[in-house]
Amino acid sequence: MIHYSSYKYKCFPRKDTKEGNGTIEIMKAAILGFGTVGSGAFEALKSSDDVCVKRVLARHPIEGMEEYVTTDMDDILGDSEIDIVAECIGGEHPALDYVKAAMRSGKHVVTPNKNLVSAHYEELMSLAKECGVQFRFTPTAGGGTPWLFNLQRQARCDEIMSVSGIVNGSCNYILDRMQREGAGFDEILADAQKLGYAEKDPSADIRGFDTQRKCVISANTAFGCSIHEEDVPVFGIDKIRSIDIDHFREKGYTCRLMMNASRIEGTDSISAYVEPVLVPPGELAASVPLNNNLIFLTGRNIGTLAFYGQGAGKMPTGTSLAEDMIDIADRSIPTHKAMENHLTVDNTRVFHRYYMRDGDKIRITNNMTVRDAHAFAAKHAGGFFMAGIMEN
Amino acid sequence: MIHYSSYKYKCFPRKDTKEGNGTIEIMKAAILGFGTVGSGAFEALKSSDDVCVKRVLARHPIEGMEEYVTTDMDDILGDSEIDIVAECIGGEHPALDYVKAAMRSGKHVVTPNKNLVSAHYEELMSLAKECGVQFRFTPTAGGGTPWLFNLQRQARCDEIMSVSGIVNGSCNYILDRMQREGAGFDEILADAQKLGYAEKDPSADIRGFDTQRKCVISANTAFGCSIHEEDVPVFGIDKIRSIDIDHFREKGYTCRLMMNASRIEGTDSISAYVEPVLVPPGELAASVPLNNNLIFLTGRNIGTLAFYGQGAGKMPTGTSLAEDMIDIADRSIPTHKAMENHLTVDNTRVFHRYYMRDGDKIRITNNMTVRDAHAFAAKHAGGFFMAGIMEN
Repeated sequence: MIHYSSYKYKCFPRKDTKEGNGTIEIMKAAILGFGTVGSGAFEALKSSDDVCVKRVLARHPIEGMEEYVTTDMDDILGDSEIDIVAECIGGEHPALDYVKAAMRSGKHVVTPNKNLVSAHYEELMSLAKECGVQFRFTPTAGGGTPWLFNLQRQARCDEIMSVSGIVNGSCNYILDRMQREGAGFDEILADAQKLGYAEKDPSADIRGFDTQRKCVISANTAFGCSIHEEDVPVFGIDKIRSIDIDHFREKGYTCRLMMNASRIEGTDSISAYVEPVLVPPGELAASVPLNNNLIFLTGRNIGTLAFYGQGAGKMPTGTSLAEDMIDIADRSIPTHKAMENHLTVDNTRVFHRYYMRDGDKIRITNNMTVRDAHAFAAKHAGGFFMAGIMEN
Repeated sequence: MIHYSSYKYKCFPRKDTKEGNGTIEIMKAAILGFGTVGSGAFEALKSSDDVCVKRVLARHPIEGMEEYVTTDMDDILGDSEIDIVAECIGGEHPALDYVKAAMRSGKHVVTPNKNLVSAHYEELMSLAKECGVQFRFTPTAGGGTPWLFNLQRQARCDEIMSVSGIVNGSCNYILDRMQREGAGFDEILADAQKLGYAEKDPSADIRGFDTQRKCVISANTAFGCSIHEEDVPVFGIDKIRSIDIDHFREKGYTCRLMMNASRIEGTDSISAYVEPVLVPPGELAASVPLNNNLIFLTGRNIGTLAFYGQGAGKMPTGTSLAEDMIDIADRSIPTHKAMENHLTVDNTRVFHRYYMRDGDKIRITNNMTVRDAHAFAAKHAGGFFMAGIMEN
């Protein structure tokens, strides 16, 4: 165990000491919001030797949590003992103001809030750098899957060529059960909502916007750029029907909603898009069950790595957020290498075949560019569904 | 970027500075041995801002490397600028002596040498702790797959319940091609040797001893214990024949050589064993192509995570070793949490069905304990093959 006496951040003696190591210092954190992820992170940190929770911001008192809960954000901002703020409120407001205030108070920030990070990536990365604090958000893409952390770690001595994968557990749950059981979309969506795998309003999941946000965050982390949601064309699974699934099963394909972003060699461009993908048998992505995630990176040195885990849920996501906090206390990999590159999205250089269904009419296209396929899709209404075809 | 001025280890100013960050300090490393992995790590570190190579220990001069190469280990041990020693000699001797001398000289050590780490786990972990240095060995299990690092990271705020997976690329290459193409064992083994996926003497791979070592290292890392190679019963794939593969294909199974180690709840025991496993269709492990690895952990909080990557090769393994060095420079996750637990191996509490073939006679057993199956196998000679059956 490294002794942290020379630690540059403020540290505080803990009552107990670890065998043979003298005084142990531990970082103190505040959790904003005590919903699913916030309470999961609180649970996970109970067994940490490195980070403990001092305050929880909540609107109302919580039984048994009297020593932690405050309703006043200033109690946290003004507490010099608190080094880390974990934003678990969700949404953009007031989360954005709280995160900015925490950074300006010299506190490191972690968050599982993909809406916030995707919409305000540049602003928050710049502010963190300006304030000299760390900003970590591993759970924003992959939930419990240690994806973004490993992507950053790999990028330190490798050139990331592409990122891709299944990052929305709700969609994978629906597609996996449709494919395995032949049950209908609406029936399975209702089950997913009952099980807490899908929101009451599922449109961000099934229309692909959640995957789009995770694509933005992953691409920005991978390539050190700052693309925006509107740069990434998206085609969701809300229009999929049993007739499509029947066709895929017959051909041996498994349908998955995937994000994709790749460097285009010799240019200042990347491709970036979200669409259903027909995965051939024997591919890892075809074997991802229920609401799990599987996310790939390809590096020039390391080849292809993949990370598999639960994409959501109280303890997986809460624990991933806790790991981000412990990384700060352990003084792990710095996060401020992003946004050195000014890259634009160009989907005219990536192409593959597409499955397209208009009403009941199915056709398989020749190779076509992702830009053309998504433009074609945009012109079609309710009865149209398409999926890219992954070649072996 | 965090400024490392308060860094407790010796740091050295680099000539160039990074934009906006003032002086940058960089750690200096020595690489012992300049074979496949050593030269891969050297390549990978060329793009690192955190670690640079100052010396390479080699028996003979290397063209173009005159400024680095020394033939004298004392040049490295006596150089106070060198903070990290990367042992890439392989084998136990003189690697063990060099690693111990480096630790005693106050240098951190990294190594991809699974024979060394598996055989001298306790001694090296204790010495590193005594010397106050870090000892990292992520490439020893998984090659380019960031497995052990993530296992340690997860264990900081989770209880690891089990580890398992495909950790030998040579065996997976043979099994995957036998299964996909129906080609014979000897023919594919010869190909694997030609491609550098298998050693000239392939017995450590195909008889399972390589997987056994990775099981020891993974279990010790996961559970903070110090089990030994002889605690882990092993059954390899050297006795597999086309008749077995034909049977598996007919039943829809895919055969994989896997390590397995699990906590047995309520006891001071773990199960730990290596055997071929018949994987049902639709499982991730069935879809691992060629010489790749796929390694699982299950944590009480995080659920099941899996890590996929190339199990060997110059740049994947060399880059993974470079990442371990950068983790030291970045002051990442401490490594000295191991060996707090005195656990023994008990394979009488784990059971499943087995495929067993004696000569040409195939039978599927009822559930039997792993201990009994391996004891049964030990009594049989050349014509016997068995594989555990994974249930959905």
